[in-house]
Amino acid sequence: MTLGKELTGLTVISLEQAVAAPYCGLLLADAGARVIKIERSSGDFARGYDAGAGGQSAIFAWLNRGKQSVCLDLKDPGDLAHLRAALRVVDVLLSNLAPGAVARMGLGPEALRQINPGLITCAISGYGPTGEAAQKKAYDFLVQAEAGICAVTGTPDSPARVGVSLTDLATGLTAFCGILRALIQRGITGRGSDLDLSMFDVMADWMNMPLLQHRYTGGAPDRSGLTHSFVAPYGAFVCGDGGTVLLSVQSNREFAALSGQVLGQPELARDPRFAENPARHANRDALAAIITAKFSAHTRADVVAMLDAARIANAQLNSVADLSEHSFLRTARAKIGADRIDMASLPLRQGSNDTENVPDLGAHTADFKAEFQKAESP
Amino acid sequence: MTLGKELTGLTVISLEQAVAAPYCGLLLADAGARVIKIERSSGDFARGYDAGAGGQSAIFAWLNRGKQSVCLDLKDPGDLAHLRAALRVVDVLLSNLAPGAVARMGLGPEALRQINPGLITCAISGYGPTGEAAQKKAYDFLVQAEAGICAVTGTPDSPARVGVSLTDLATGLTAFCGILRALIQRGITGRGSDLDLSMFDVMADWMNMPLLQHRYTGGAPDRSGLTHSFVAPYGAFVCGDGGTVLLSVQSNREFAALSGQVLGQPELARDPRFAENPARHANRDALAAIITAKFSAHTRADVVAMLDAARIANAQLNSVADLSEHSFLRTARAKIGADRIDMASLPLRQGSNDTENVPDLGAHTADFKAEFQKAESP
Repeated sequence: MTLGKELTGLTVISLEQAVAAPYCGLLLADAGARVIKIERSSGDFARGYDAGAGGQSAIFAWLNRGKQSVCLDLKDPGDLAHLRAALRVVDVLLSNLAPGAVARMGLGPEALRQINPGLITCAISGYGPTGEAAQKKAYDFLVQAEAGICAVTGTPDSPARVGVSLTDLATGLTAFCGILRALIQRGITGRGSDLDLSMFDVMADWMNMPLLQHRYTGGAPDRSGLTHSFVAPYGAFVCGDGGTVLLSVQSNREFAALSGQVLGQPELARDPRFAENPARHANRDALAAIITAKFSAHTRADVVAMLDAARIANAQLNSVADLSEHSFLRTARAKIGADRIDMASLPLRQGSNDTENVPDLGAHTADFKAEFQKAESP
Repeated sequence: MTLGKELTGLTVISLEQAVAAPYCGLLLADAGARVIKIERSSGDFARGYDAGAGGQSAIFAWLNRGKQSVCLDLKDPGDLAHLRAALRVVDVLLSNLAPGAVARMGLGPEALRQINPGLITCAISGYGPTGEAAQKKAYDFLVQAEAGICAVTGTPDSPARVGVSLTDLATGLTAFCGILRALIQRGITGRGSDLDLSMFDVMADWMNMPLLQHRYTGGAPDRSGLTHSFVAPYGAFVCGDGGTVLLSVQSNREFAALSGQVLGQPELARDPRFAENPARHANRDALAAIITAKFSAHTRADVVAMLDAARIANAQLNSVADLSEHSFLRTARAKIGADRIDMASLPLRQGSNDTENVPDLGAHTADFKAEFQKAESP
């Protein structure tokens, strides 16, 4: 038995934009919840990230498939009344608006708790809900830098940002965990909870490995591109067809297999320059020259096959184009406007894998207003 | 109301090592579950990652606080019988052993389903549970490269790995989500589920932004270190005290604020070289020189204060040491042996924040064997 749509019957209202909260909303929708994305009349600005899907954004499609879209002007008392009516009866309010925006609309957790004791609220911020931190603007890249991620990523000369939206995605996934936990808790207590989640806190936890090395072991490792600061051979090697293979040798047993089965020079494992990892690391340039001489006579595919046969952990240094054609890539399909786009699937495998619709801006506004008007009472 | 320990009463057995499954186990323990970490007699090799906590590993402490440790030799029929007895009655079996290891012990999901219909199994692999992928060895860095993460991270000349265990942590967090979903589903159906989660699938989903740019918008962006491929000003600027500030200007309104309030040159916003973002990007070197001239006369703290006052999104390019002293950093404490270590807290804030104990190797073996022996019946 696999996962199904176990959140069927739950309704989520999401005051969301860009990536972090929308990714959480995607995960909720994928698990079966009805996710109502509230947008301003101009739409989530992520609708303009690209024009790759028949003039609409393919990236927006990835993050918003399976949701409903409702346009509301939250400065308009009538529209706000519809939203408040809905918040009396829905299960979850997710948000990642600008600092303070939700509270200014009178939708802070204390106010909502009085009209809906079971409501779960989850507010995503850059740096936290109170004090100086609450006012600081945040974008994915900026939080990466503030939390030290860029200090440990890149080459010795050049720190770099991570090329995927690490902070937003990790935060969205953590928010999803928090909401699932709160649903389980509500099943026990009957009461909702209020979750405050900061992107900085998520990244700080993920930084614990270098942080603890800094605090307790004499220093965080230096940035080292694709190599390792004390293991060899470890890193990228170019093959005869120009392809690159990464390998990692973690033990003398693995080095013996590399020397004998792959390089065809079993004596290397007894060579004092290479017999133990510290020696291998000290003589890593000589070792790399031997490996490169062998690999340069073979295609990348052949090198990978030899390494696999010798049980040496390896990977290809794939481009985005390589990923797109990768035999292991599982695909999901979304329909946006008249277009269909194929993207990498969510990782949790489950029974149904239907094409999901990406909502047109405001496609569900009229139905929403019709559904949530009577509930608002004095 | 905040999150409590809502998984209290649930028992998890974790055949775990290194980072991915241990991080999931940590999250389960943090939510209140009893997490029984099964280790070989030599212990999870992560116990040897460093010696920063009084000779034990501070990194191990981060990942394993709040768990129990049970040493079993799973090639010994007696020890295996204890484990099978436990698996009749526990709620979750989590694992990230080498490919095929769990099935070879007779602990595959089909076998366990017969003795415990409510059991939730979650098996983490590198590349998937079947076919060619199932045999491929995986480490965090290698999966980053295979999935294309390194191709979009680093400088134009040098791809780089991400300096935190991105793949392991994202996979552990996703596994936690899957288990929470399966618990909710079990609450509805009374039956467990079997989750297969691959590190490659997790990274492929996280790669959707560059993947979709490659497929639908004419190409993924190039690696660009700390700068942006089409927005300016965006990136790192050095201040008078040597500190670095990152800033990101996303609109003409923000650029007007930067020009007037921060740089003291409001005319720049009307200068044809800088009036619109495409012009700013084309003339980004001239613009950077103007910004650097101003920032070099101030300390980093002063520059950040000026940018905050002008509502220009910014961040510091912090080192690991900076993170360690950061005023926004929330700390958790763990006790390991006679030592206490302070680490970055988990991001979901909850009621209790007690010091958690890190189990000594095998500390709970005797109790485990005493508890789980009668349950095994013919």
